[in-house]
Amino acid sequence: MRTFVVLGHDAPTDPDFPLDDLPGAAGRLDVLCRCVSAAVFLSHGIREDVEVYLVLRDELTVRIDSSELQYMSPDERNVASLLKQAIEAKDGAIGHREAESTPGIHVSKRGFEAVLDSLDGTVVELHEDGTPLADAEPPENPVFVLSDHGDFTDEEAALLAERSDRRVRVGPQILHADHTVTVAHNYLDTDGFTDY
Amino acid sequence: MRTFVVLGHDAPTDPDFPLDDLPGAAGRLDVLCRCVSAAVFLSHGIREDVEVYLVLRDELTVRIDSSELQYMSPDERNVASLLKQAIEAKDGAIGHREAESTPGIHVSKRGFEAVLDSLDGTVVELHEDGTPLADAEPPENPVFVLSDHGDFTDEEAALLAERSDRRVRVGPQILHADHTVTVAHNYLDTDGFTDY
Repeated sequence: MRTFVVLGHDAPTDPDFPLDDLPGAAGRLDVLCRCVSAAVFLSHGIREDVEVYLVLRDELTVRIDSSELQYMSPDERNVASLLKQAIEAKDGAIGHREAESTPGIHVSKRGFEAVLDSLDGTVVELHEDGTPLADAEPPENPVFVLSDHGDFTDEEAALLAERSDRRVRVGPQILHADHTVTVAHNYLDTDGFTDY
Repeated sequence: MRTFVVLGHDAPTDPDFPLDDLPGAAGRLDVLCRCVSAAVFLSHGIREDVEVYLVLRDELTVRIDSSELQYMSPDERNVASLLKQAIEAKDGAIGHREAESTPGIHVSKRGFEAVLDSLDGTVVELHEDGTPLADAEPPENPVFVLSDHGDFTDEEAALLAERSDRRVRVGPQILHADHTVTVAHNYLDTDGFTDY
């Protein structure tokens, strides 16, 4: 299983956002949509065994399970429309229990810490002082934690530092979150850039 | 300079496409928009010295020059709106000469072969029988050639085989064109996954 946790600091928690203005009125939801797309899609299919957790304003979490996913295509607007349906379904999520909005998409009232608590893979922090990705042994069940267009808050960074098992860096450039997802997949696909 | 040539087989050559239906009525323009975004953007800025050529139905080419680029944000809808303006400007492009629609975005009436003729970098073909990317020495001025959601036509594949200097493969999975752009950048950023 490959897991990606993406923190959306300005993302909507109410479903009344416009699909025509994902970067503005929808709080950079475009970034989260591209992260989902990068995480679940191959050229002509969907990856198996990928989970994406989108943590919206530390209060609502949408979980996408690639193995059950249906009705998604890789464009931002389509992903956003499915996220809108997930947010609409939030009243059916009681406590930390999830509600399913469409096949493979689940919503719960959980923040970042509760999501981390629920995961038991190897938490990988992306950090400029981390080990070069090519030098790090690929974990069996990696959990990559990423932030949207903004940095982690001090609180998030402290929690992540406490919970992370490894720190890696993906290169000398700071990449968008969705591009980092793609690099992480390629690293795992090739067993650390060794097996093509 | 890093160059990406992306062939859009179903992409519009008239500007009357709707921004609300990039995958459908705009002929998978969403893929080309994500390719542009992956090619030119870093987390908080624009890469220097990147050129993207979007070849639309082998008759119209939009060239994006990152060093002059303005007004672009990384979401698909914004990129598509700039491509729409480029296509609108096509009547100002005479022969193979370009017309500039907005800063850094140029349109010309060129197809794939004319674009290849105009480039003098090292043409890299992505091919499942190619050298593993990690084993290939990064060229100084690479020209990566990619296809949208569809395969190269037989004619395109033959032309590319004739013109390409190298064949590489990016991994065991077949990736979307935009994800391949991201992997190629990471390969070049890290000098072939060696320098982080």
